[in-house]
Amino acid sequence: MDAISVIRTKRDRGELTPEQIDWVIDAYTRGEVADEQMSALAMAILLNGMNRTEIARWTAAMIASGERMDFASLSRPTTDKHSTGGVGDKITLPLAPLVAACGAAVPQLSGRGLGHTGGTLDKLESIPGWRAHLSNEEMLNVLDTTGAVICAAGDGLAPADKKLYALRDVTGTVEAIPLIASSIMSKKIAEGTGALVLDVKVGSGAFMKTIEDARELASTMVALGTDSGVRTVALLTDMATPLGLTAGNALEVRESVEVLAGGGPKDVVDLTLALAREMLDAAGLKDADPEKALADGSAMDVWRRMISAQGGDPDATLPVAREQHVVTAPSTGVLTRLDAYDIGVAAWRLGAGRARKEDPVQAGAGVELHAKPGDEVTAGQPLLTLHTDTPEKFDYALKALPDAYDIAPAGTAFTATPVVRERIA
Amino acid sequence: MDAISVIRTKRDRGELTPEQIDWVIDAYTRGEVADEQMSALAMAILLNGMNRTEIARWTAAMIASGERMDFASLSRPTTDKHSTGGVGDKITLPLAPLVAACGAAVPQLSGRGLGHTGGTLDKLESIPGWRAHLSNEEMLNVLDTTGAVICAAGDGLAPADKKLYALRDVTGTVEAIPLIASSIMSKKIAEGTGALVLDVKVGSGAFMKTIEDARELASTMVALGTDSGVRTVALLTDMATPLGLTAGNALEVRESVEVLAGGGPKDVVDLTLALAREMLDAAGLKDADPEKALADGSAMDVWRRMISAQGGDPDATLPVAREQHVVTAPSTGVLTRLDAYDIGVAAWRLGAGRARKEDPVQAGAGVELHAKPGDEVTAGQPLLTLHTDTPEKFDYALKALPDAYDIAPAGTAFTATPVVRERIA
Repeated sequence: MDAISVIRTKRDRGELTPEQIDWVIDAYTRGEVADEQMSALAMAILLNGMNRTEIARWTAAMIASGERMDFASLSRPTTDKHSTGGVGDKITLPLAPLVAACGAAVPQLSGRGLGHTGGTLDKLESIPGWRAHLSNEEMLNVLDTTGAVICAAGDGLAPADKKLYALRDVTGTVEAIPLIASSIMSKKIAEGTGALVLDVKVGSGAFMKTIEDARELASTMVALGTDSGVRTVALLTDMATPLGLTAGNALEVRESVEVLAGGGPKDVVDLTLALAREMLDAAGLKDADPEKALADGSAMDVWRRMISAQGGDPDATLPVAREQHVVTAPSTGVLTRLDAYDIGVAAWRLGAGRARKEDPVQAGAGVELHAKPGDEVTAGQPLLTLHTDTPEKFDYALKALPDAYDIAPAGTAFTATPVVRERIA
Repeated sequence: MDAISVIRTKRDRGELTPEQIDWVIDAYTRGEVADEQMSALAMAILLNGMNRTEIARWTAAMIASGERMDFASLSRPTTDKHSTGGVGDKITLPLAPLVAACGAAVPQLSGRGLGHTGGTLDKLESIPGWRAHLSNEEMLNVLDTTGAVICAAGDGLAPADKKLYALRDVTGTVEAIPLIASSIMSKKIAEGTGALVLDVKVGSGAFMKTIEDARELASTMVALGTDSGVRTVALLTDMATPLGLTAGNALEVRESVEVLAGGGPKDVVDLTLALAREMLDAAGLKDADPEKALADGSAMDVWRRMISAQGGDPDATLPVAREQHVVTAPSTGVLTRLDAYDIGVAAWRLGAGRARKEDPVQAGAGVELHAKPGDEVTAGQPLLTLHTDTPEKFDYALKALPDAYDIAPAGTAFTATPVVRERIA
């Protein structure tokens, strides 16, 4: 077996054999296959595709490159959620404690922001003292005592994926559905969850811009999970508009706490409840009542215990950016569009995201929305507030916004896109 | 400008801009664009192609990465030949001195064997004392005093190509017509020859297996040369059958000397003369008579002076392999096929070629043919003699040969493929 023959097979539109896949993933993890060989193979996969058999084997080989976790010692059924990433997508924060409050165990291994999309760990790190990196033992302990844990994946989990992901990021090979699906699912299967709900975002602010691509990604992942014995369901959800009224780290923590306190924007509450129901259903907890757990404060209790268990202070004052800049509505009428991608790029440029992996993020930076599509606005009223510690970033952030919204004449009919567009099981 | 945006442009079937091409070649040469980024781009180019404008700019950028040579000080017109590589293709050896004997200057920068194909420098190095590596000054001096020089290209010539060629070799991206064409032509244009004849091989033993691919490569290269002011012509020549009766280093030198002495196999003589006429014509030497220069010994004189000028002894005994193994004809009849690829692989495995760049080659190893397609053979007569210094290689070499030839019943009609199949100017 050698790297060139594997590359040639896929380059010439052939099907990779199980032996080729096992060998290339193992040899790449060990450093025998070089980065320049794997990137050529990744480009060939992006352009020529992989079939379901190949994707399943590729995923299994990435799982086999590292350790598998085991939650059998827990008394509760495990259930997890994964979002493909969006703008203002803070759902994991209220969702994990909510589902735990309803009786499930939620081992939520999360990531950091990529490009214009936010990252759950970056958001939680705006809480003073909170730690993202736990040992496997600490993780199990937090999960066992509070019912939920949100932390970084350990280095032992799918190391092949870790290496390949970093390579794809710098070689223009991120947008390959087989590689996205196997990357997500290898981590989730290795993590050992019994049930999994996938939140596949679709729209300008998502990696999948069309419903067709989102469907293909979702059904590929559902098949991978199901074939590995994980009860897997996917919701295709709207990411043409940012979720909620905030995009940014501490800004989104604040909004999440509002949801846990029984308030918060309707779209965030609706999506949190829809995903909670799916997670509980997949975990076999059919009688659970997440709406009640939000209303009676039990979800908030889990949140507070979970944050404390990871060193965070749930009562601490969250960081606020030093400078603000207000964008006002240029005309009176109905806001008919607020673009998720443009808002995400503005938040990123204000300091909420990073240009390179090793860059720090600003806890307080981001964009606050004062209206959502369907709302009436008056010329001169605040539409967006930009937050940053470094005011020289305002100009560059504003350059992302000239086409970020449409205001139609007052009285124009407006039909909202539902947050949940499709369900794939 | 950044590597990812250049990769994405080609990945998404866009046309690379002149600025993108100039930047990526320059940044790759300087090490700012990483190998894994260039290999992803090379795979995208292989699968999505480049148009003529892109190829021309790519070639110009590779030329600009290094120095350009200048033969203006010579009193004779310069003319050069390049073969895309085949089995038994020793034509450069008799051709260069022959064309020099007819009045042109032949600056022949040559390469080493790649895979199953032989390399001109490897062949000449079987002559005791002969040196492939000359300084630019030495090269000009040999060319000026003898009329011809065959040597390795200096490190200063198209360094971007040198780096990219080594990368393509290990990433399954050799077989991209835009990259093959720009690699060959960047070196030839930078070398500064006034005229160039391309010998584009087609058939099992060539990199181009079909006449269509060979035509596309040839016309791409002719356009590149012409646009750069080099009078360029291409012959598409047969490589379904090995050229001549030998494949191997010293074996081919011996056969080349036979041709220079007025003998040698008909196909080698015919192709040498056809290419000599094209080279002389392109150099403006319309009245030259290469047949006479072969017959009257003047080509042999140039050969002897050229070999001596590079440290070689033209009268030295050439190395002979220590062991021989004879393959006999299994039946009586007409030999209708002798496969160039299979013979090339056998010669390679016997030690005439190398598995890795840094491997040495055996001077005496190779395959000797005792019949060519169209010849009548008798059961039990020698068909091939395998030569090697390491007899344990016979088994592996023989494994390349079970389907290497066809023998039809005696009296079967046979039509030979002409050596020169097409001409593209």
